[in-house]
Amino acid sequence: MLTRIDHIGIACFDLDATVEFYRATYGFEVFHTETNEEQGIREAMLRINGTDDGGASYLQLLEPTREDSTVAKWLARNGEGVHHIAFGTADVDGEAEQIRGKGIRVLYDEPRIGSMGSRITFLHPKDCHGVLTELVTSAPADGTGEGQGH
Amino acid sequence: MLTRIDHIGIACFDLDATVEFYRATYGFEVFHTETNEEQGIREAMLRINGTDDGGASYLQLLEPTREDSTVAKWLARNGEGVHHIAFGTADVDGEAEQIRGKGIRVLYDEPRIGSMGSRITFLHPKDCHGVLTELVTSAPADGTGEGQGH
Repeated sequence: MLTRIDHIGIACFDLDATVEFYRATYGFEVFHTETNEEQGIREAMLRINGTDDGGASYLQLLEPTREDSTVAKWLARNGEGVHHIAFGTADVDGEAEQIRGKGIRVLYDEPRIGSMGSRITFLHPKDCHGVLTELVTSAPADGTGEGQGH
Repeated sequence: MLTRIDHIGIACFDLDATVEFYRATYGFEVFHTETNEEQGIREAMLRINGTDDGGASYLQLLEPTREDSTVAKWLARNGEGVHHIAFGTADVDGEAEQIRGKGIRVLYDEPRIGSMGSRITFLHPKDCHGVLTELVTSAPADGTGEGQGH
């Protein structure tokens, strides 16, 4: 079961400038930053609200760290904007398996590590009416009660 | 103050098929449907989770009802995908005014009526790092305590 909008992923050319835009315009503060070398991104998570499954919803601002990353290629084609959306679930493995069984292409064989120690996978946008869709199970320590037993 | 991700607006060519995709793939059910003749759209709201400001987060699926609507033109350029994101606030008028004062283009002189009797306005995507951004104050009856005094 998918129980929340976990985050909206927004691709940008300059992470520091985009973080400053969201702070100055709306007052949103940075909750967490990290670099994911595997995905070739540097990111900032802005926490917007808590959710009734015990989790939270974030904006995830993404800047590519290398020219050959998928986000760099996406930015070159599309310019800045919404790159993907993510739904939170207690069981990313089970959800990915069920959804794969419905004929939707799941991009990873097994979930990988995403923001803040979460476990994530992606669904092919062409199978999802044009929306690159991520599934996320938060790390246990974030208070959602997710990620147990992994 | 913006207190939640209110919704993610997703443009599609065929609302019924897209609603069915979200139901069959994830189990998301339709919470509300309506047609907004002014905006030239037919929409379905799928409620994903409650938020800690007393509101909720939705997916808003949008199908154009006429060729000259902004969503029809957007679909012709971009194909299906995420069209806009929306933040919830108790005071869309005050927020719009403050943000306009920071030099961001606000698309309506005064907020207009959006989904479920809410009051909404939009910020120009070129002033928001490529993201068409909506501000929403829910109708009073939805239990968020918003919309009082308007």
